[in-house]
Amino acid sequence: MKARTMPQRTTPKRVYLFGTGQSDGAAHMKELLGGKGANLAEMASLGLPVPPGFTITTEVCTAYYANGRSLPDGLKEDVEAALAEVGKAVGATFGDIKSPLLVSVRSGARASMPGMMDTILNLGLNDETVKGLAAKSGNARFAYDSYRRFIQMYADVVLEVDHGIFEDILDNHKNLNGHSLDTDLQADDWLAVIDEYKEAVASETGKPFPQSTSEQLWGAIGAVFGSWQNARANTYRRLHGIPDNWGTAVNVQAMVFGNLGEASATGVAFTRNPSTGARELYGEFLVNAQGEDVVAGIRTPQPLTDKARKQSGEKAPSLEALMPKTFAELTGIFSKLESRYRDMQDIEFTIQEGRLWMLQTRSGKRTTEAALRIAADLCAEGVISREEAVMRIDANALDQLLHPTIDPAAEKHVVATGLPASPGAASGEIVFDADEAEKLKGLGKEVILVRVETSPEDIHGMHAAAGILTTRGGMTSHAAVVARGMGRPCVCGAGALRIDYQAGTLTVGGETFRKGDVITIDGGKGEVLKGRVKMRQPELSGDFARIMAWADEARVLGVRANADTPREAKQARDFGAEGIGLCRTEHMFFDESRILAMREMICADDEAGRRRALAKMLPMQRADFEDLFEIMAGLPVTIRLLDPPLHEFLPHEAREAEAVAKALNVPLDKLKARVSELHEFNPMLGFRGCRLAIRYPEITEMQARAIFEGAVNAAKRTGKPVVPEVMIPLVAYRAEFDLLRDVIVKVAEAVRRETGAELTYQIGTMIELPRAALKAAEIAGGEGGAEFFSFGTNDLTQTCLGLSRDDAAPILANYMERAIFEVDPFVSIDQEGVGELVRIGTERGRKVRPGLKVGICGEHGGDPDSVDFCHRTGLDYVSCSAFRVPVARLAAGQAAIRAKSAGL
Amino acid sequence: MKARTMPQRTTPKRVYLFGTGQSDGAAHMKELLGGKGANLAEMASLGLPVPPGFTITTEVCTAYYANGRSLPDGLKEDVEAALAEVGKAVGATFGDIKSPLLVSVRSGARASMPGMMDTILNLGLNDETVKGLAAKSGNARFAYDSYRRFIQMYADVVLEVDHGIFEDILDNHKNLNGHSLDTDLQADDWLAVIDEYKEAVASETGKPFPQSTSEQLWGAIGAVFGSWQNARANTYRRLHGIPDNWGTAVNVQAMVFGNLGEASATGVAFTRNPSTGARELYGEFLVNAQGEDVVAGIRTPQPLTDKARKQSGEKAPSLEALMPKTFAELTGIFSKLESRYRDMQDIEFTIQEGRLWMLQTRSGKRTTEAALRIAADLCAEGVISREEAVMRIDANALDQLLHPTIDPAAEKHVVATGLPASPGAASGEIVFDADEAEKLKGLGKEVILVRVETSPEDIHGMHAAAGILTTRGGMTSHAAVVARGMGRPCVCGAGALRIDYQAGTLTVGGETFRKGDVITIDGGKGEVLKGRVKMRQPELSGDFARIMAWADEARVLGVRANADTPREAKQARDFGAEGIGLCRTEHMFFDESRILAMREMICADDEAGRRRALAKMLPMQRADFEDLFEIMAGLPVTIRLLDPPLHEFLPHEAREAEAVAKALNVPLDKLKARVSELHEFNPMLGFRGCRLAIRYPEITEMQARAIFEGAVNAAKRTGKPVVPEVMIPLVAYRAEFDLLRDVIVKVAEAVRRETGAELTYQIGTMIELPRAALKAAEIAGGEGGAEFFSFGTNDLTQTCLGLSRDDAAPILANYMERAIFEVDPFVSIDQEGVGELVRIGTERGRKVRPGLKVGICGEHGGDPDSVDFCHRTGLDYVSCSAFRVPVARLAAGQAAIRAKSAGL
Repeated sequence: MKARTMPQRTTPKRVYLFGTGQSDGAAHMKELLGGKGANLAEMASLGLPVPPGFTITTEVCTAYYANGRSLPDGLKEDVEAALAEVGKAVGATFGDIKSPLLVSVRSGARASMPGMMDTILNLGLNDETVKGLAAKSGNARFAYDSYRRFIQMYADVVLEVDHGIFEDILDNHKNLNGHSLDTDLQADDWLAVIDEYKEAVASETGKPFPQSTSEQLWGAIGAVFGSWQNARANTYRRLHGIPDNWGTAVNVQAMVFGNLGEASATGVAFTRNPSTGARELYGEFLVNAQGEDVVAGIRTPQPLTDKARKQSGEKAPSLEALMPKTFAELTGIFSKLESRYRDMQDIEFTIQEGRLWMLQTRSGKRTTEAALRIAADLCAEGVISREEAVMRIDANALDQLLHPTIDPAAEKHVVATGLPASPGAASGEIVFDADEAEKLKGLGKEVILVRVETSPEDIHGMHAAAGILTTRGGMTSHAAVVARGMGRPCVCGAGALRIDYQAGTLTVGGETFRKGDVITIDGGKGEVLKGRVKMRQPELSGDFARIMAWADEARVLGVRANADTPREAKQARDFGAEGIGLCRTEHMFFDESRILAMREMICADDEAGRRRALAKMLPMQRADFEDLFEIMAGLPVTIRLLDPPLHEFLPHEAREAEAVAKALNVPLDKLKARVSELHEFNPMLGFRGCRLAIRYPEITEMQARAIFEGAVNAAKRTGKPVVPEVMIPLVAYRAEFDLLRDVIVKVAEAVRRETGAELTYQIGTMIELPRAALKAAEIAGGEGGAEFFSFGTNDLTQTCLGLSRDDAAPILANYMERAIFEVDPFVSIDQEGVGELVRIGTERGRKVRPGLKVGICGEHGGDPDSVDFCHRTGLDYVSCSAFRVPVARLAAGQAAIRAKSAGL
Repeated sequence: MKARTMPQRTTPKRVYLFGTGQSDGAAHMKELLGGKGANLAEMASLGLPVPPGFTITTEVCTAYYANGRSLPDGLKEDVEAALAEVGKAVGATFGDIKSPLLVSVRSGARASMPGMMDTILNLGLNDETVKGLAAKSGNARFAYDSYRRFIQMYADVVLEVDHGIFEDILDNHKNLNGHSLDTDLQADDWLAVIDEYKEAVASETGKPFPQSTSEQLWGAIGAVFGSWQNARANTYRRLHGIPDNWGTAVNVQAMVFGNLGEASATGVAFTRNPSTGARELYGEFLVNAQGEDVVAGIRTPQPLTDKARKQSGEKAPSLEALMPKTFAELTGIFSKLESRYRDMQDIEFTIQEGRLWMLQTRSGKRTTEAALRIAADLCAEGVISREEAVMRIDANALDQLLHPTIDPAAEKHVVATGLPASPGAASGEIVFDADEAEKLKGLGKEVILVRVETSPEDIHGMHAAAGILTTRGGMTSHAAVVARGMGRPCVCGAGALRIDYQAGTLTVGGETFRKGDVITIDGGKGEVLKGRVKMRQPELSGDFARIMAWADEARVLGVRANADTPREAKQARDFGAEGIGLCRTEHMFFDESRILAMREMICADDEAGRRRALAKMLPMQRADFEDLFEIMAGLPVTIRLLDPPLHEFLPHEAREAEAVAKALNVPLDKLKARVSELHEFNPMLGFRGCRLAIRYPEITEMQARAIFEGAVNAAKRTGKPVVPEVMIPLVAYRAEFDLLRDVIVKVAEAVRRETGAELTYQIGTMIELPRAALKAAEIAGGEGGAEFFSFGTNDLTQTCLGLSRDDAAPILANYMERAIFEVDPFVSIDQEGVGELVRIGTERGRKVRPGLKVGICGEHGGDPDSVDFCHRTGLDYVSCSAFRVPVARLAAGQAAIRAKSAGL
């Protein structure tokens, strides 16, 4: 069946030549030729020195799988013809004893992908051709070294012989013969090693090492295609959402040798500094070496430039000094490639007896800092436009730059080091338990969650913690992955620390820290520090500010922040938030000094009792709002009325209950009865949101009064008009909205009368239930309808998918593993399901109320893909946590540019 | 603003005459004239003797409210003109001293509505006109009696004087003058009473009783309109979903008097027996009485016919005997009305000095039994069609007939009586606690929940109980209302019973029943019986069977049953179910003998351990399915794979946990750890449905094997092919469906190989999450897509509305009270919200898979309004509990007829 889905051409071209005088491919043909093949063809077309070769297309790979892992008819002939062309170009013949053509075989997918077969060098050597190579090069040592390398690679990759066997043979040989370095070995040594290698292959595989160069070639091609679906590649594709049917190409290319003596070399280079982004050549090379030697780290590579040599204090000469002519040629090629590709390039080259050959070019990986600088510089250089500069930055990666870091001037006492698993620094009280972390956070404390390792059950605690520290696990441990996802600083695998959960202690050396002691972690360096250490807040300046400004120029979406406290609000403004999209009023009542009044309200016998308690809460809440309005100075502030189930405010443990009963002066039994009365099986779907206010409208009265009085006061103080947006949560029926709107409007009228102040405000609702999205027209329509919508995509995801966020961790893990989810739907919005509800809600709402202001305030508001979705759906703004505001600004700019270039 | 919504005619006719020789109205004008006014006009048009009068339209009422409770200009003139016409017809003049026209003023809405002002009689009497009436009638006693009645009614209804005051005055007068009956009072007595009445009015209202007959009339008209929006009427409208803007009409009609001596009388009649439906005159009358005397019950009314008199043993003569000519005239009118209205009529009449007057006719209320008989008879008589007969039955009321009743031949020992709050009889073990009721039901026991009274917290226990018994509360107590809604037999307010919750006992007289003792309740009679009493299962025969057959002829929707046990399956077939739409496989494992294997599976360390436990469960489950397949003998059976969260199967109490740990032979700590591991914050949105099977595919393997092996065995035994429908629950993503479909298909292939049997089956899914409805095309599309959909509207309601069924009770109560909900969305489907998801899912599914079989299996499947919705949405079938199957059949027939007559 699958075969039918393959494009059927009458004469599908399967093999693309390059560097033979003819170059069939080009840079834009990545889908067909893979990244490597397309770029080799492009370089050859530019007239750069590329060893000739050819690319077998990705379509052949797809056909290979469609036909039960067999290669299509006619491919053999195509490859042989191409091989002949290559041989002609270099003056050698594949399999020829006198002048053998040697080739490399490399995989080449559209995107580079770990796990796939990478490279086989020197293919075409056998017991006979090696002699020809020795004679032709006049360098027997080189020839036999090349042969043994080939056997080793081929056996490992194609024949799947454990590469340790070859290392053992070589070590053994060196020991027996008193050699310490590979370079000590001479031709005879290699010959002896080769014999042993071949014996090992025969005994491991039951067959002699293939002497047929054709068998070698087809074995290597088959291995490349086969590796497309090995376990590691499959996992990578699943995790990164790469379709199985993309396939990989195979590149076969004439060998050039950097190991033909002192006039030969091999190296890698970046056209700019990938760490800082500075406009300077950056790279290293080795004289008389083949490619893998640079990476292997056996010899120390030398810097390319004199400047770099001086900076690093390296003694060996730079390429600039050693081979000035070649260096100049290389510099020229770098400029050519940068102006062709309009981006920093990551390049591999080889110098064979003084002649330069280009083996690869691609856009280079870089740090976020470098990405910003390179994009800004390229724009300044006139190479790319502002919009292109904006598109060059990975919005998700931006997050790294936005966290507080340890002040370099601060005194610090490092007690242990671990892995720098997630950037940023954080201070807080030590807590050993996720539940407790959440509880303390609820009480307004900053905590560092300290665990031997974390598991999905700890997610809520990790979320609550300012930082995470583990004593076990690496950069991809659960703690590391999750912390990076959440933007929480994290130090992993700090093995010197000993945790005693029972005693509640953390011991290192002779020092013991207890639960509640304050520590600081530096997730960028992997350090654990004693006490609270002075931090430096991230600053938006230079290239960062420039790119953000360009993103702002492009973007259409507004960006607001979710902020409940003055600190968060200030942070949000610093990061460029254009208002508060979600202020959760209940967070203000978890504070120890306030929760008592809240509890008194909840436990009151009647409305009069509730009103007494609410009267105590009014001045606190008014002051909260006043502060926020002042900080936002005229920018819009959306305030959500009380939302969570009331039982969240009550004590659930016996000991705590006693204390609370005493403080409230109510009998313990009564308190317990109220707790049990408010208990729910599914609190997420229970007595919360507007349902609370419909039962107890006096709560809304108090909150509305606090909002309006706060607005009047703040406007007086700042002289800027405050237009609060009052948001009613969890509405599903227009009648719910109407009932509470009436309460709010009456309070507004009363405050107007009492203060004589002008009072402008809007009343809107969160759309966080599927019904609300479907009934958007009813909710927004006519007089007294909702004046704005804010999609609460956290809850909308929970209800649309029927998946409780608090309980999702084990299900998500299983679903990721089974490839049902490509991405956590709580991190990036489920565009097809939840997204359709957002689209429906927006369309229907705007139909009855043109220009209805529509935003999103779930955590998705800071996720670039979700921001792109919001742009395409025509929302007015996204709102996210303060630290994600720059991410959202950039993503929103990118979304606008993307849509424009797609002609939308 | 509201006024604009009123229809604006240039000359809106506001007053409609009847019986004046001219009748402006007709029966079909109920919206404008109200039911009473339209029917009076209709009777007059038919030539029946109707006292002349006129109707002020409902539009005037709407205008009255739109204009701030003031009557529209020009109405006065219209009414005066009409009044003159009426006077002309009867030879009297309103307010005339010699020949005064007296009128009644009555409200008349489209549907009769408790709480509204009903009737004022004798209006037009004052201190002068009463003398004219006395002279004209030659009956001073009659005239003054009429006047005092008028004062009493008018003061009560229009002037809002407490009616107790008048009763006190009258009692006082009787006591002082040695009278015991009203009939003992003579003209002078009444004159004295009238003086006292007028004094009372003056002192209570500060104004004299109005002597202006015009003021009287407009006072009465205003009172009728005003009563449209009194509290009781508003509540009634809210509860019954009657729009506020319907308004009421006012009927003003010339008085006729049944109290003008022995040749006068007043009575009520039904054209058939409203209790049994038998074709016989049914009614009663009083000689020399005014309307309210019949209802007041001071004198015993006499039967209309001789036959009825004989049957009741009444001594007073029948109307048939007393006034044979008038009786014959009445009989003739009854036939005329039945053939005009084509239904049993409920009639009010008055005989004034030998002359018959018709005061009201309307379709009469009747029992469900009577409704069936009347509809069947009218059809047999050729009066109505089969379709009309089907439409005449209230599908909801049918339920009453379907419950088991006590066998009349059974020996029974009544220990107490209470109110017959909900029909049907039930036996079971006494249980005093809702949680325990649920638990025991889970263990397969039948229980009677016994409470002093019930509250929303008991709902789950009431659901679990076979019957409910309370010692306090009336016919509208919580227990009564909820039990009727659930179709559970219920006896309320059995005050002789004493409950001791602590001791777990129920005491009556000297007898004590303990928790676990078996009792029987008869909810139709209100009896509490000792032990288990023999019951008679309801039978479908006679009129019932006839009407059901006609409904089946009309209906398009299939009707299946939700059945998990052979008993339920048999019951369902008896009630006409066409298959099983939902078999919940997990219910089979709550049985004590089986739950251990389930728990072993849940607590297993690995897949091997789970498979060992599953192997024990396989034969049990296979036997279950075999039985169901056999009973359904070739009809479709939809089996849902394991759905509930696993922790539901584990013990939650310490004592129970110990016993289970021992039985499972696992350490208690391990069991506890597993319980806590499976704990969830929102189990409804957690690890359940297909999520279980994706984590543990071996569960699905076992269930699929049990289904297919059971199907093969049952087919062999019955010789009828079994086509099981395997239903995967809680799917939201196509990938979930695919993964489990693969598992099921593989098992089917294995069973086919092993047994050599043909095996036909379908694999489909429940659509119970909003995402599933939205992504229906993806889930059903292409090869391997879902072959059927069954909407799980219980869960779909929970997720669409964000409302947990288990936690909804207090929210629902509050929302009903505040008129946000007209009806419990778990009882009748929320057509606009949840219903849109059903529509979307159906449309999108059928678009990619034409003819996709679509059903519904939530409890809504047995609710007539929801069934109607399902018909309109084009579903293939509904599935509901066995006892609701006839309701669904009837409702489905009605839905089809309704759609047809609407031209759909």
